[in-house]
Amino acid sequence: MTVPASPARDTFALTREKFSLPEGVRYFDGNSLGPLPKAVQMQAYITTTHEWGDGLIRSWRSAKWNTLPQRVGDAIGRLIGAAAGQVVACDSTSVNLFKVLTAALRLRADRKVILTDASSFPTDLYIAEQVARLCGAEILNLPVSEFPKFLNDRVAAVLLCHVDYRSAEVYDLARLTRAAHRAGALMVCDLSHSAGAIPCNLDESEVDFAVGCGYKYLNGGPGAPAFLYAAKRHHTDCEQPLTGWFGHAAPFEFTPSYAPAPGIERFLCGTNQVIALSLLNRSLEVFDGISIEEIRTRSLELTEQFISSAENRLAPHGFVVASPKDSNVRGSHVSLRHPQGYAIMQELSRRGVIGDFRMPDFMRFGFAPLFNTADEVEYLVDQIDQIMTTRAWDNPDYEQRRAFT
Amino acid sequence: MTVPASPARDTFALTREKFSLPEGVRYFDGNSLGPLPKAVQMQAYITTTHEWGDGLIRSWRSAKWNTLPQRVGDAIGRLIGAAAGQVVACDSTSVNLFKVLTAALRLRADRKVILTDASSFPTDLYIAEQVARLCGAEILNLPVSEFPKFLNDRVAAVLLCHVDYRSAEVYDLARLTRAAHRAGALMVCDLSHSAGAIPCNLDESEVDFAVGCGYKYLNGGPGAPAFLYAAKRHHTDCEQPLTGWFGHAAPFEFTPSYAPAPGIERFLCGTNQVIALSLLNRSLEVFDGISIEEIRTRSLELTEQFISSAENRLAPHGFVVASPKDSNVRGSHVSLRHPQGYAIMQELSRRGVIGDFRMPDFMRFGFAPLFNTADEVEYLVDQIDQIMTTRAWDNPDYEQRRAFT
Repeated sequence: MTVPASPARDTFALTREKFSLPEGVRYFDGNSLGPLPKAVQMQAYITTTHEWGDGLIRSWRSAKWNTLPQRVGDAIGRLIGAAAGQVVACDSTSVNLFKVLTAALRLRADRKVILTDASSFPTDLYIAEQVARLCGAEILNLPVSEFPKFLNDRVAAVLLCHVDYRSAEVYDLARLTRAAHRAGALMVCDLSHSAGAIPCNLDESEVDFAVGCGYKYLNGGPGAPAFLYAAKRHHTDCEQPLTGWFGHAAPFEFTPSYAPAPGIERFLCGTNQVIALSLLNRSLEVFDGISIEEIRTRSLELTEQFISSAENRLAPHGFVVASPKDSNVRGSHVSLRHPQGYAIMQELSRRGVIGDFRMPDFMRFGFAPLFNTADEVEYLVDQIDQIMTTRAWDNPDYEQRRAFT
Repeated sequence: MTVPASPARDTFALTREKFSLPEGVRYFDGNSLGPLPKAVQMQAYITTTHEWGDGLIRSWRSAKWNTLPQRVGDAIGRLIGAAAGQVVACDSTSVNLFKVLTAALRLRADRKVILTDASSFPTDLYIAEQVARLCGAEILNLPVSEFPKFLNDRVAAVLLCHVDYRSAEVYDLARLTRAAHRAGALMVCDLSHSAGAIPCNLDESEVDFAVGCGYKYLNGGPGAPAFLYAAKRHHTDCEQPLTGWFGHAAPFEFTPSYAPAPGIERFLCGTNQVIALSLLNRSLEVFDGISIEEIRTRSLELTEQFISSAENRLAPHGFVVASPKDSNVRGSHVSLRHPQGYAIMQELSRRGVIGDFRMPDFMRFGFAPLFNTADEVEYLVDQIDQIMTTRAWDNPDYEQRRAFT
């Protein structure tokens, strides 16, 4: 008897077809670098050969290069629960974090504390330290679970990573935002490991500012532009510090003093990264017609399948599941810990199975709902099991250096 | 009698062949957006389809994505007189200016003045104002000619645009840097309108920091990454404020505190813009085997020819040459002023002749040594002459709005 495929499976079989995935590779690193959507290949040709080559400077208008950050921003907004006009795609996540965190401190000028959990992503802390230094503020560094207890009238902003980059734990953005607001603080959120995989509900949760990455679940390509969200209610009053001409109300008037654009455009800085934005714009079409809730459902199917198999078949080899088993608080990747994690990842890679590794012993596997399949999940567990059974990882030739990415 | 072509002409006939220039277009806007080098079309395919599509995350090492900012930086360094290891390509000009200007103020922490000429490029001033605000400094805004007189022990840094974006006047970087240093101040320079067209001699002139644009004479494509120069002598001590993970000594150790990379890499911030950097890297090959001095010679031939023709044939129509006639202080574009400048530029564009327009009445024509020809210069003057003679510009249909770029 043939079991009919569920509508969801059909949907994701179709989205998988939209990616160019190399033969013989099983890719579990869409959480670090999303794969190439086929349509992007053609877009690279269109943007370089036609728009740039033939259109030259005229394409700023004719090919709408001038509105790319806003158009791409709105497309991302749909995935993170932001109504139009509140997201731009530009710069890097770090640069955008610098902008919004400084803007938040300026909105709460009488408060001098940034509350964050440095362990959730140290890179964000590096930026926060500079913002604190330049704004005369200080960092209060605590586990997220302690945040509500330490929220008081000295806290200007909470800086939260929505998903922990190692464990995949998802924090409750709505609840923490309410807690921040009750104390008069603003919520600044890094969605790098959730945008495109998990509902973020920014508007509904009344998050104040957010940033995130374009090259993970959004599949924008290596080093793709990042994005930045600022709730509409803050647009008029907030001042960001990277006041390049594209954030100006009238960039080509060349007025001697800066006047910020009225809307979200005030968060732009330098000239639009046209080529990279065009590719990201095209990449996002893979999400057309699918809701973020459907994506979340699919993601949980895959991570549950992996955790269940790993507990049955890999725990005996000494693997520990380091991600939450409660699907309500688990993101779209699963980390296993194992003392030989690095060598095992190397052997997996030799077999065409790609995940990534994070210090000291986290083997991270991303399950990207748009292209990963149940068969791939089983294949992954089979391979790890085989490697451990044959001790293939125990190869003295493996370089014991750290993975780059 | 056939006059043999000069070696220089042969050189530049060959470089012109390296660009994909549309049929029927004469392009005098390489100073705003350089045209498409043919090799970039293939590179777009290689980077997207092979490196990203097939290599996926592995290409960070196998395709050397991890060293792109440094490799592209060194290639630009050759054009601006910087020895290897002092230039990185990353972010935008505005973001890079924010980094180096803040770093300069921190190196002169006891001084609180940024000396600049706001009229030379207002966008740089917008950034300088934010740096001043965040560092507790102030801006002293004067014409460049007044700089030496106002250099004193309160000035931390001089911020200078090497070439005026409207008039094309070139300032004497070596002389002004000496003056700054005599007063104990640092020189921060914007090379957007000189890099790739005019010798900058950064090392020889002992400039401290510089930034510049990747999409003008460097032909990196719309919104290409910018570059940043920091003299080696400052690397150990200087601290820039945008401390993203790619500027960290060991980005993938995820240490809780920031430790800057020992060399120029400390000026990186977010993840390398891989695709855009790959294209810029390929674009720069057009400069292979040519010295910046040869390029300068060719540039002056073209601008002299244009000025001479314009004075003979266009001055009677009311055009004023707004660029220096002294070739020692003239960059690679020439501006004409005319009260109907905007309408005339529109009519030129209709005829396939592309320059650009800057408020209030500057008609800018860039003469890019790598592809513009003497025949094109004559064609340009012919067309303007025809337009004025037939009053073709006096067309009420033309929208009197400002040019975007």
